Amino acid sequence: MLSDVQIAQSATIQPIDEIAKKIGISPEQLEHYGKYKAKVNPKEIATLPKKQGKLILVSAINPTPAGEGKTTVTIGLADALNHIGKQTVIALREPSLGPVFGIKGGATGGGYAQVLPMEDINLHFTGDFHAIAAANNLLAAMIDNHIYQGNTLNIDPKRVLWRHVSNMNDRQLRHIISGIGKPTDGVMREDGFDIAVASEVMAIFCLSKDLQDLKNRLSQILIAYTYDNQAVFVKDLQAQGAMATLLKDAIKPNLVQTLEGTPAFVHGGPFANIAHGCNSILATKLAQHLGDYAVTEAGFGADLGAEKFLDIKCRQSGLRPDCAVIVATARALKYNGGVKKENLTLENVEALKAGLPNLLKHIHNLKNVFGLPVVVAINRFVSDTEAELNAIEDACTAQGVKVSMTEVWGKGGAGGVDLAQKVIDTIENEENKFQFAYEVEASIQDKIMAIASKIYGAAHVEFSTEAQAEIANLNRLGLNHLPICMAKTQYSLSDNAKLLGRPEGFTIHIRTITVSAGAGFIVAICGTIMKMPGLPKVPAAVNIDVDENGVISGLF
Amino acid sequence: MLSDVQIAQSATIQPIDEIAKKIGISPEQLEHYGKYKAKVNPKEIATLPKKQGKLILVSAINPTPAGEGKTTVTIGLADALNHIGKQTVIALREPSLGPVFGIKGGATGGGYAQVLPMEDINLHFTGDFHAIAAANNLLAAMIDNHIYQGNTLNIDPKRVLWRHVSNMNDRQLRHIISGIGKPTDGVMREDGFDIAVASEVMAIFCLSKDLQDLKNRLSQILIAYTYDNQAVFVKDLQAQGAMATLLKDAIKPNLVQTLEGTPAFVHGGPFANIAHGCNSILATKLAQHLGDYAVTEAGFGADLGAEKFLDIKCRQSGLRPDCAVIVATARALKYNGGVKKENLTLENVEALKAGLPNLLKHIHNLKNVFGLPVVVAINRFVSDTEAELNAIEDACTAQGVKVSMTEVWGKGGAGGVDLAQKVIDTIENEENKFQFAYEVEASIQDKIMAIASKIYGAAHVEFSTEAQAEIANLNRLGLNHLPICMAKTQYSLSDNAKLLGRPEGFTIHIRTITVSAGAGFIVAICGTIMKMPGLPKVPAAVNIDVDENGVISGLF
Repeated sequence: MLSDVQIAQSATIQPIDEIAKKIGISPEQLEHYGKYKAKVNPKEIATLPKKQGKLILVSAINPTPAGEGKTTVTIGLADALNHIGKQTVIALREPSLGPVFGIKGGATGGGYAQVLPMEDINLHFTGDFHAIAAANNLLAAMIDNHIYQGNTLNIDPKRVLWRHVSNMNDRQLRHIISGIGKPTDGVMREDGFDIAVASEVMAIFCLSKDLQDLKNRLSQILIAYTYDNQAVFVKDLQAQGAMATLLKDAIKPNLVQTLEGTPAFVHGGPFANIAHGCNSILATKLAQHLGDYAVTEAGFGADLGAEKFLDIKCRQSGLRPDCAVIVATARALKYNGGVKKENLTLENVEALKAGLPNLLKHIHNLKNVFGLPVVVAINRFVSDTEAELNAIEDACTAQGVKVSMTEVWGKGGAGGVDLAQKVIDTIENEENKFQFAYEVEASIQDKIMAIASKIYGAAHVEFSTEAQAEIANLNRLGLNHLPICMAKTQYSLSDNAKLLGRPEGFTIHIRTITVSAGAGFIVAICGTIMKMPGLPKVPAAVNIDVDENGVISGLF
Repeated sequence: MLSDVQIAQSATIQPIDEIAKKIGISPEQLEHYGKYKAKVNPKEIATLPKKQGKLILVSAINPTPAGEGKTTVTIGLADALNHIGKQTVIALREPSLGPVFGIKGGATGGGYAQVLPMEDINLHFTGDFHAIAAANNLLAAMIDNHIYQGNTLNIDPKRVLWRHVSNMNDRQLRHIISGIGKPTDGVMREDGFDIAVASEVMAIFCLSKDLQDLKNRLSQILIAYTYDNQAVFVKDLQAQGAMATLLKDAIKPNLVQTLEGTPAFVHGGPFANIAHGCNSILATKLAQHLGDYAVTEAGFGADLGAEKFLDIKCRQSGLRPDCAVIVATARALKYNGGVKKENLTLENVEALKAGLPNLLKHIHNLKNVFGLPVVVAINRFVSDTEAELNAIEDACTAQGVKVSMTEVWGKGGAGGVDLAQKVIDTIENEENKFQFAYEVEASIQDKIMAIASKIYGAAHVEFSTEAQAEIANLNRLGLNHLPICMAKTQYSLSDNAKLLGRPEGFTIHIRTITVSAGAGFIVAICGTIMKMPGLPKVPAAVNIDVDENGVISGLF
């Protein structure tokens, strides 16, 4: 069996000009980055006919170590739609560089459902994340420089909220003391680094409508408090112009292709816990502008990814999905039903049935809470048995939801034709009664309670003393009428990673609250959230190599 | 009078395909980065006719606050050569991002002698420096991860030599304590950041012949010592493959154009103190491959920049200049003669004559020590008087050296025709007896003494106890037969920035010695060398902005 990188390297990749032509973009309207990647300036193609394609959101059950293949299904569904003659464009997140050298390998789909050129996309791509890191770190330097140069804003060095970022997995930098050395070497304080994708600049980048909106949002980032407890924003340092200058090219969506030549905008990639976890609004809108169908994806399970896509991204942008696809696997459902990872290839219908309520809850959330037409996509594995697949189908059918067994990993678009047809049928025949899970005008507590009860199925929400104090602070600052970005474990509907399936009667514990005032959301944090990964004992980097002709090995 | 950025923005820039065609490169052989920038893979154009153009090295007297305009003259000379029908290609350094937001503004020439697109080149350009920073920081993360994960190499955390880098001016990160926090947050130690251009990865990048050579050099970087004083190299961590993977596209030289359409390879930009201060070997070789004349530049004054160009870059690459151009201004010579900065626009022939020995020493070094044909280029200012210019001309003529008054800043290539003709005449008629200033087989002390006495005019060299110990250490490790990279002030021929003109009888103080074993040179450090700049009280960033159409202002 070929590995993902082998499949990718043996593929016949088309010049990006050819891919662009399929969706009406001429080569002159592209900004080329080599032969197979290009940036598309939305202003440049504003006059092209607006197709206002149907928007399909791909989400999933709670992730498991077994892997669900959400990105793979997203790519395969789009290939399948093109396969049956529907003009379809993808919008996806960009992978983060650091994890490529750690454990994860790439994030460009798998098998015969991948985006190309996979090596480039997994490495620097078009430099967007470097630009985001530079903008983040310019601001960090300007804050410390302001304090060092006399601190006319009266910033309390112990209350600087802004952190540096790096594109690498580097646990050593999580917590540091900076500004040691001589008097000319800054002001000593506790400090630290996050991975670049965790930067609020990334979230802003993905939520901005255009360069002006980007700059406005950057100016509103809350960066520190003064000694007398006043909020300090980026605009107080006049850093937003220089930061936006660093991002002016990065915010143009990147056009690439799938193995089957489907156009794909791969752009932006915020965390799905402390941020909203989906590609840029500009990329999603371009996909809708140019395709009859636009397929996009949200991070983690539907309780986090889809909820934020809908309550944050859709609310801020006006985007409205026409259909939600929930990806699951028989293996992941068995895992949710209590089967250990090493036994997942054995038939176990009882365990699968015990895990099904996890899928059913996500169906309920998207269909009944948000009011969207829903289709379930089962990403098939060779070890799946008929009895297992029938059990899934029966359960979904009982909810009035179509389910499709896809084989896009092994067969590409041809393996997703049934899914594509069911999605089209659902869009054409089912009612869309989309609504948000809460209104932003509600109190912070009520908004969190709405998500916890309606989406997670929690019985209670408990706010720590720290969280209560921060809610009072955000009320004081007038930053309370923003949507909520929940940061909790992705492995459970609850905030306890070990509660699989569909837990009930549990309490959600809000440990702390922060605000991403530029991105425009309040982050409610349950437990601890890792914003800077570390490398494993033997990092993937040790096996990554490039030969004298520039051919990369070991990337997967 | 128009500013540099105004001149650049009002220029008619040609598609890079047109610039490439001038030197025989077809659009298919380019890797485009937008319409006006492209990378050129030397392998891709290996079959094009090799012109082996004459190589012209532009250097200068010791820099002064008045500014000499070395890059401007380099660009203007190339434009002038094309102006008179000589096919000429430029090789220049890339600007560093951090200083653009600090004090410096851009580094792409000035007036009517600039390279375009100046905003892009001064910002992310094609991402080379981000790739270098990523490779540097991947290695940093792998070192700390190795120590954290059991430290089988027995690395002493107090003797890690490798530092992190950032592309921003950030004094706060010069000296830090990293690895604080919980047990899972790394191993606490003293640590720090340099600016990315100061990374040994940058020096290696600029000295590598190809991707394989790059990887070999990366593997030889000395990164730490063990508890029992054994040297640890990158190859011991197997990091070179992943680092080279991050650099595989970056090492292809970037093709851009001057305001007059002269092809320019702008590629690499190492520090001129702790590194060798000139663009990549690959770029210089491409310029010679494709042009009848290749014009390049070395950093700082000729005592540092040209000396390293000749003793390090030429020695490692086989490059040999056909002519050296020394740039000076009447104002800078008056400054060297003791005139204060605010009085430099007033005629002062006596002071100018007192400053001339600085220029004469650099002429002597290049002509008599290195044996190169030399031309002096005076970068004219409107305040220069006939009497002043005559005094310069007389002094140079007395040394048998041609001098040209250039006006490329105000007139572009047309203002440098006289210089171009004198350079051609000198190449065609003067003997080239090029030799190095020392042989690498000599002892470290003797090599340093040779540079100090022959090039700087020092009477003595004093080695600190620390420097002596490190020399003994490098002898022990067998790393002693490498060329020397002197890190001293650029403002004086001595190691005291205040000794202007041509000081004599002075002592050079070697405070410490380090080795860049991958780059292939020993660094001898006089005094303190700043490897991480800070921002000024009002950073340039505050005035940099971008409008909704992506037009940048305040970059200068």
